[in-house]
Amino acid sequence: MSVSEFDLIRRYFTRATGARADVLLGIGDDCALLNPPSDRCLAVSMDTLVEGRHFLTGTDPVSLGHKALAVNLSDLAAMGAEPAWATLALTLPEPNTAWLQAFMEGFSALAAEYGVQLVGGDTTRGPLSITVQVHGFVEPASALRRSGGKPGDRLFVSGRVGDAGLALQRARGPSIPVDLRLQERLDRPAPRVALGRLLAGRASAAIDISDGLVSDLGHVCTASHVGARVELGCLPVSPAVAAECGLGNWWYVLAGGDDYELLFTAEPAQVEDVLGRCREAGHQVQDIGCLVADSGITLVYPDGRESKETPSGFDHFRN
Amino acid sequence: MSVSEFDLIRRYFTRATGARADVLLGIGDDCALLNPPSDRCLAVSMDTLVEGRHFLTGTDPVSLGHKALAVNLSDLAAMGAEPAWATLALTLPEPNTAWLQAFMEGFSALAAEYGVQLVGGDTTRGPLSITVQVHGFVEPASALRRSGGKPGDRLFVSGRVGDAGLALQRARGPSIPVDLRLQERLDRPAPRVALGRLLAGRASAAIDISDGLVSDLGHVCTASHVGARVELGCLPVSPAVAAECGLGNWWYVLAGGDDYELLFTAEPAQVEDVLGRCREAGHQVQDIGCLVADSGITLVYPDGRESKETPSGFDHFRN
Repeated sequence: MSVSEFDLIRRYFTRATGARADVLLGIGDDCALLNPPSDRCLAVSMDTLVEGRHFLTGTDPVSLGHKALAVNLSDLAAMGAEPAWATLALTLPEPNTAWLQAFMEGFSALAAEYGVQLVGGDTTRGPLSITVQVHGFVEPASALRRSGGKPGDRLFVSGRVGDAGLALQRARGPSIPVDLRLQERLDRPAPRVALGRLLAGRASAAIDISDGLVSDLGHVCTASHVGARVELGCLPVSPAVAAECGLGNWWYVLAGGDDYELLFTAEPAQVEDVLGRCREAGHQVQDIGCLVADSGITLVYPDGRESKETPSGFDHFRN
Repeated sequence: MSVSEFDLIRRYFTRATGARADVLLGIGDDCALLNPPSDRCLAVSMDTLVEGRHFLTGTDPVSLGHKALAVNLSDLAAMGAEPAWATLALTLPEPNTAWLQAFMEGFSALAAEYGVQLVGGDTTRGPLSITVQVHGFVEPASALRRSGGKPGDRLFVSGRVGDAGLALQRARGPSIPVDLRLQERLDRPAPRVALGRLLAGRASAAIDISDGLVSDLGHVCTASHVGARVELGCLPVSPAVAAECGLGNWWYVLAGGDDYELLFTAEPAQVEDVLGRCREAGHQVQDIGCLVADSGITLVYPDGRESKETPSGFDHFRN
């Protein structure tokens, strides 16, 4: 039995997420009609996940639905924006309704958590690929840009780094069983939306470390015309990643990527206020270094050795 | 030599299109920051083109860049919206800079024509696929919805129908050389944006006929809870398509799809005004029938024969 595209859309997408008052017209016409607030600007971001490139063949579709939205919400978080709407372009090899139902289960659960409504998109047949665009709101003056860092600003990272890269490495080589908590960090990242909202107007610059810490810090440095010093001994890591670092393998923390934590900077005068608010709200953030006037990233190893080595991040056309 | 994703983005996307005053922050941060007008709502639409499914392998990249944006602008046209911003998710098998340059040439030329700025997106490696989202503005009360049709409304179509379907058919079977004007209609459709703006607040319902005339008319009928009568002898066709119809082959006009013309309805009292404005602005529109109270689509053949046959449109999971 063949299933029509329109049936698929009707069944899984139309009522997949909650209804927001600012959606004048959702799925089902040539366009969605949306009513952005007049006092804030619109923040938009679009990310694609391709099978075999961003996720392994056979990845659990519930996790994939979660992750496709999460990586986009992470971009809103990095801008300090409040999530509102999503669109979804889904390319599937075949109309597999069980897969689609599971995918939308993961997508919708995360959408509900952040009050996001799915308002449109496209369903096509082809090699498995998922593109999501998210739309959020932020006060223009409070938006967290990459370009706002200044020499002397302290450098912070949220959560832990390196877990996702290590989980992916272990999933690829079946010799070591993958720790479920590591796997969860790879498959179901938690976008730091609440932290991003807290930092809006308070941090001087921010980015999410989807491409790897050094690579994404490099983007902040380039945009802000500064350099940075990172104290590797201060990096927040799980025991599994700490064990790798202990063996001298710093790749996971520095370039593993896929962590979806926030890397941000704060002026010295703001640090106490920012850290106090983070503590109060239960956000784990760690001081890992500072911005400096000289360009380039200096890595300070726990033994005091300094290096300007800068491992490449996750770059689709270099790997 | 490998080319980094960031180099590619910087080179081809950052300055690909003109700068709009309502773009606070374009390509290069975690999100774009946009300033929608406060007196109109935001219309968004997203469409994917997959190689081998929506275009033949080896399609000229300049045409593809044009078409990827055009099919989306056509959705804004069908809503009566004014185009503003676009995002582009491009999945490429390899970093082919000549291909990318040609693609962006086609994309940017059309973007310039409609004052559209490319504000963000994603570049990934994988099977060739293009997803574009467009964003436009429309007065909420004037937006052209599918659901506004009423029995007695006249039914119109713009331009000509069937050309794209015939061109595709001929391109697939190399026995008949493809007429260049037909090929142009398939490869470089002209989105009916100006017509859509003219119809906003004047037509009772509208849709673009990307899926085929009968299929898309069916969407209007379903949304408006009406039926329709279509006088096939009135359908505007090119000589090549007319020849096919003369042989009894109505498939191209009824279900060929990919035409990106507007199908719209107007209350009898509005018809004279709408047609007058279309004539004045040089838009070719043709009265092809009317909406009726009874559900279903009645096709009236030139010999007077009536049929409730409804050929399926272009449905990705049925074909």
